[in-house]
Amino acid sequence: MTAQPLELHPDRLFPADPKVREIARELYNEEQKYPIISPHGHVPPQWLADNEPFADPTSMLLTPDHYTNRILHSVGSVDLADLGVPVGSPMTPEKSRAAWRLFCKNWWVFRGTAVQFWFESEFYDVFGIRVRPSEETADQIYDQINEALKTEEFLPRSLYKRFNLAMLATTDDPCDDLRYHEKLANDPTWDGRVTPTFRPDAYLEPARPTFKALTEKLGETADQDVSTYAGHLEAMRKRRLFFKEHGAVSSDHSHKDPGTARLSDHEAETLYQQALAGKISPEDGDRLRRHMINDQAHLAAEDGLVMTIHPAVFRNHDEQAFAQLGADVGGDIPMKVEFTRNLQPLLTELGNHPNFQLIAFTIDQDVYQRELAPLAGYYRSVYVGAPWWFIDYADAITRYREQVTPYGTFYKTTGMIDDTRAFASIPARHDVARRVDAGYLARLVAEHRLAMDEALQVAADLVSTIPTRAFKLNG
Amino acid sequence: MTAQPLELHPDRLFPADPKVREIARELYNEEQKYPIISPHGHVPPQWLADNEPFADPTSMLLTPDHYTNRILHSVGSVDLADLGVPVGSPMTPEKSRAAWRLFCKNWWVFRGTAVQFWFESEFYDVFGIRVRPSEETADQIYDQINEALKTEEFLPRSLYKRFNLAMLATTDDPCDDLRYHEKLANDPTWDGRVTPTFRPDAYLEPARPTFKALTEKLGETADQDVSTYAGHLEAMRKRRLFFKEHGAVSSDHSHKDPGTARLSDHEAETLYQQALAGKISPEDGDRLRRHMINDQAHLAAEDGLVMTIHPAVFRNHDEQAFAQLGADVGGDIPMKVEFTRNLQPLLTELGNHPNFQLIAFTIDQDVYQRELAPLAGYYRSVYVGAPWWFIDYADAITRYREQVTPYGTFYKTTGMIDDTRAFASIPARHDVARRVDAGYLARLVAEHRLAMDEALQVAADLVSTIPTRAFKLNG
Amino acid sequence: MTAQPLELHPDRLFPADPKVREIARELYNEEQKYPIISPHGHVPPQWLADNEPFADPTSMLLTPDHYTNRILHSVGSVDLADLGVPVGSPMTPEKSRAAWRLFCKNWWVFRGTAVQFWFESEFYDVFGIRVRPSEETADQIYDQINEALKTEEFLPRSLYKRFNLAMLATTDDPCDDLRYHEKLANDPTWDGRVTPTFRPDAYLEPARPTFKALTEKLGETADQDVSTYAGHLEAMRKRRLFFKEHGAVSSDHSHKDPGTARLSDHEAETLYQQALAGKISPEDGDRLRRHMINDQAHLAAEDGLVMTIHPAVFRNHDEQAFAQLGADVGGDIPMKVEFTRNLQPLLTELGNHPNFQLIAFTIDQDVYQRELAPLAGYYRSVYVGAPWWFIDYADAITRYREQVTPYGTFYKTTGMIDDTRAFASIPARHDVARRVDAGYLARLVAEHRLAMDEALQVAADLVSTIPTRAFKLNG
Repeated sequence: MTAQPLELHPDRLFPADPKVREIARELYNEEQKYPIISPHGHVPPQWLADNEPFADPTSMLLTPDHYTNRILHSVGSVDLADLGVPVGSPMTPEKSRAAWRLFCKNWWVFRGTAVQFWFESEFYDVFGIRVRPSEETADQIYDQINEALKTEEFLPRSLYKRFNLAMLATTDDPCDDLRYHEKLANDPTWDGRVTPTFRPDAYLEPARPTFKALTEKLGETADQDVSTYAGHLEAMRKRRLFFKEHGAVSSDHSHKDPGTARLSDHEAETLYQQALAGKISPEDGDRLRRHMINDQAHLAAEDGLVMTIHPAVFRNHDEQAFAQLGADVGGDIPMKVEFTRNLQPLLTELGNHPNFQLIAFTIDQDVYQRELAPLAGYYRSVYVGAPWWFIDYADAITRYREQVTPYGTFYKTTGMIDDTRAFASIPARHDVARRVDAGYLARLVAEHRLAMDEALQVAADLVSTIPTRAFKLNG
Repeated sequence: MTAQPLELHPDRLFPADPKVREIARELYNEEQKYPIISPHGHVPPQWLADNEPFADPTSMLLTPDHYTNRILHSVGSVDLADLGVPVGSPMTPEKSRAAWRLFCKNWWVFRGTAVQFWFESEFYDVFGIRVRPSEETADQIYDQINEALKTEEFLPRSLYKRFNLAMLATTDDPCDDLRYHEKLANDPTWDGRVTPTFRPDAYLEPARPTFKALTEKLGETADQDVSTYAGHLEAMRKRRLFFKEHGAVSSDHSHKDPGTARLSDHEAETLYQQALAGKISPEDGDRLRRHMINDQAHLAAEDGLVMTIHPAVFRNHDEQAFAQLGADVGGDIPMKVEFTRNLQPLLTELGNHPNFQLIAFTIDQDVYQRELAPLAGYYRSVYVGAPWWFIDYADAITRYREQVTPYGTFYKTTGMIDDTRAFASIPARHDVARRVDAGYLARLVAEHRLAMDEALQVAADLVSTIPTRAFKLNG
Repeated sequence: MTAQPLELHPDRLFPADPKVREIARELYNEEQKYPIISPHGHVPPQWLADNEPFADPTSMLLTPDHYTNRILHSVGSVDLADLGVPVGSPMTPEKSRAAWRLFCKNWWVFRGTAVQFWFESEFYDVFGIRVRPSEETADQIYDQINEALKTEEFLPRSLYKRFNLAMLATTDDPCDDLRYHEKLANDPTWDGRVTPTFRPDAYLEPARPTFKALTEKLGETADQDVSTYAGHLEAMRKRRLFFKEHGAVSSDHSHKDPGTARLSDHEAETLYQQALAGKISPEDGDRLRRHMINDQAHLAAEDGLVMTIHPAVFRNHDEQAFAQLGADVGGDIPMKVEFTRNLQPLLTELGNHPNFQLIAFTIDQDVYQRELAPLAGYYRSVYVGAPWWFIDYADAITRYREQVTPYGTFYKTTGMIDDTRAFASIPARHDVARRVDAGYLARLVAEHRLAMDEALQVAADLVSTIPTRAFKLNG
């Protein structure tokens, strides 16, 4: 079989109807006048701080991308370990090339998925690949990317520029010293914007066996006595401020439910002591965690960090894979979630607070129309976070817009949240969102539900003022 | 910036594909041969009974419309009180004009929403406005509407005629004396049809502090001893008959769940006594309420009033706004709902009763396909109520048809339920439903899933025989 | 009114856009090169084994089709008993013709439903009917079909050939002697493939009053002491092997939830003894059933039978109809379902086992995107079963593809599962799936999300390699 050419049509993802497509094209061109804002993701700051070349195609593009890994695993042809999972496993050039071959050989399984779209964009636009991945072309593509990665043009900072990024947020442990962010801040040759994000999840799970050790680490890092819950809260306050001083604009929270009910001070203290003693029940651990999340919101109203929450994933669903390979290897599965009741204790307190902003999103797409859009369409503090994880797929973004727009409007959404650690896929992911939004707006125009000048303004806002306001990017 | 023209395209909301659009146009023309049936809404009967001119644009169009208010509030630019909320707040001409300016200045936030569509229709068709709302045009629009409202042509009864209404249902307290309905009935110059609707929600919440007082009021109004549950039931029977004698065709019920499980007579009596003594637990209050709803259904099977239920909204979610401004100011947020189990006790008794009809609808769109359409597609007594509240948006109506048609058919739906207190928006809301239904049917025709003569018949039925049968409008 | 012609457009169900439609046509032609694989359904094996003529149109097409019956019942014009329900009721030629007239007279209620599409296909393609059903044409259609059924061409085996079936699975009781499958196997004139399916539901409900008797029957049939749970398990093992020896490729399971949590051996035994003694609580009955389902999965990993589960239907919702007419008369209503937590105990054990395959599907369409696709897109053993029951409607299949493809890929789905006892509708049901899949793929091509050669390959795979692999049809 001869190699198939890889093509990237300029109208990809636009609606097929010729008239709607023409409108979509114009709206997309408007969006393209603006740089990419990436306010929520998982690219390691070290990459940009140290600006070292990427080691090879597999460790750059394949190993850290669990979207891709999980699908390759699911069809049975590939073991996760063969793809270098978990990140940081020892790799040789041979093993790296072998992983790449597995990926290309099984390219067929990605047909019609977002993974196919992202890789085709990356291959074509970023690396200049012009053949479709297959068993036959695996080495050719590997070599071409591998060569490119050795050049100046493919250093992380070069890519940052070339991707036309206006800002890039990372995700960081509350006890992180943010040295890489500091290095970037102190580098006069660097004029990009890489902001840390405060991610305290592990520190807010009182029933986990790690709670005591993490609490002690938090106390030490914050130089704060954490023998009482008030001390824990104060340590959190200090670390949030430390993050804010290093440019953070938001904190990020993902627990199994979005509960925010407060406890009495007395009860919170009692449960906190039980947690430190390792004697808290799972149920009480959840209750104390919900109280702590409520307190994070109060801290946010003080320090102004935007709060993002995206609950309801069953982490490490596959206990065997977790035992062998650790977390984040693809075994996370979405669950149902409920926001209306869960957020009520918090929103009735802070839902219209002028300094508080809450961005909620989730895998459970049902709740966008039923709960999140109505909440955002009433409370001033609430924004509906954009497509995330499985949801950053073209049809899912369309559905998101159809469900959120009527009740939450365009203006209480947040712009694209790519949430990715696959650095080279950032332009492709935002491109999907832009094309799909253009197509959605084009349909509104074609159906005479929106005038063209209004649609052009919304298109521009979606990639500029809307994320800027939702994530307080102008301070 | 110069004022933009306001335009209303004759093909608005029709699918973009030229062939499908042409079919949709023909189907819409068929629908337009029929007057509007509005069997479920919240327009005050006094308006039509007294036929006084509307005071000003704000109090007519803005203040009572919490769709609009909640969105304006959510973007932070407008306080609810500035819009005259709650209804009945003292307003001056200056305050009214200032509210209108806020609305027009923030017109951008409605882009792509149903609110935009409704107002554009109302402005253009009802008031002859030809400029788009904006800060610049606010006064011009206000003045134009304000002048119009002083004329004969814009009196409530004139609008009723001009809107081509075949009937209009109001919503009324069980203890209401229905004087306005009586006034209309006794007025030989009035030939419209305005029917009351029996809405006993507040009287069926045994755990609320108001239960005893409301029960006493019910007993007095019905001239019935209500010291036992049997007496309460008898009082309800009498008031329902009173409503029926005044033209009511349905009762309306909205509680937090649609439970219908019966208690034993003994337990019902015991809980009823606890409720009157103010000593019932919230859980037992729910259980007694479900029993009472079951009894409402039995009364309905006797007196023939159609029963509509639309559960699962978290009322007054924002406790601060509730404390300041009272109920119905936009702080109601949908919740998940479950019908299959909840309605089973009732339907296994009355689901095929020849005199009983139950119309169910809800915000939680997931249940239309999973539960409501299958229930309506089996039980003779069950109808799937049409788009309501957030769901009367074009895309949501399409989704409703896609989800209900295959299992519930067109013929176990109810026609458009506008559920509005915004009188002037009634034609626009029904127009959305008609256009979207025409588009949906047109797609079925274009995809050769329905012959054109069949589609024309369905189009006509959807606005005539279907609501007539579902709401027993022919008695 | 004159009779309307019945027409069947060659482009039916394809998208209206001319360009997309042209692509869909080409993809559909590719699918049509392959025979129909029907790996999950309810056609009685006796029909093919005995190859007797069908008695009349009503008992062949109407009485056993509860899709049709339930809708006719729901509009109030027809009693279930008038349609011959339950299957096996004594029928006379007059009663049969009267039922047919009722069906044709009420044809209007099926407008736009799947039932309409299926019958139009069957009437036109299988029976050569060229008039639309109506009161006027009822007798004409009845007579035409009735005559056809007396001919060789309409014997069950002739239809099997004419429908171009590659295989047909039946559903059978674990204690069935599979005599009809054996008869077919031993008939040298028969070269089709009719496989039994092991359906042990009734034997896995320990809290039902029938449990003891069924267990004894199982023990006798398997010649196995079932006085302990280990004995019960061994009896199941034997019967599964018996089915496998007779060609079975899968077992089929439908309970009210998909729970799979194991008990300790001791607790399982204790509850089993309680169940045999008729003293188990409903809750413990559920717990033991979940353990038993887990054990069925372990047996499946041993014997290699594919396991299909499709939970969450409220069986016999209408207790009056159940009391009068028995089960399967239309009173089954879907319920919410949860897979992520429920399947976790099983999948963490067997989710990647090389000999285990689990096909999950359900009425509750929400879970396809949220839970099933992510599970299938990670675990090797999990496949997302295709449209079932209410979901085999054109728009629902499109939604299924949109929701499953991005996370579950095309390759972890199963191909069409028709799940029908309406033998003559099998080609029409598969035709719907093929046309809708072609339309979905055509959109991906038109939007430049998939190259045409890739789409052609997927189209072919969906009706050949994909069901073959999911149901292990090559052994």
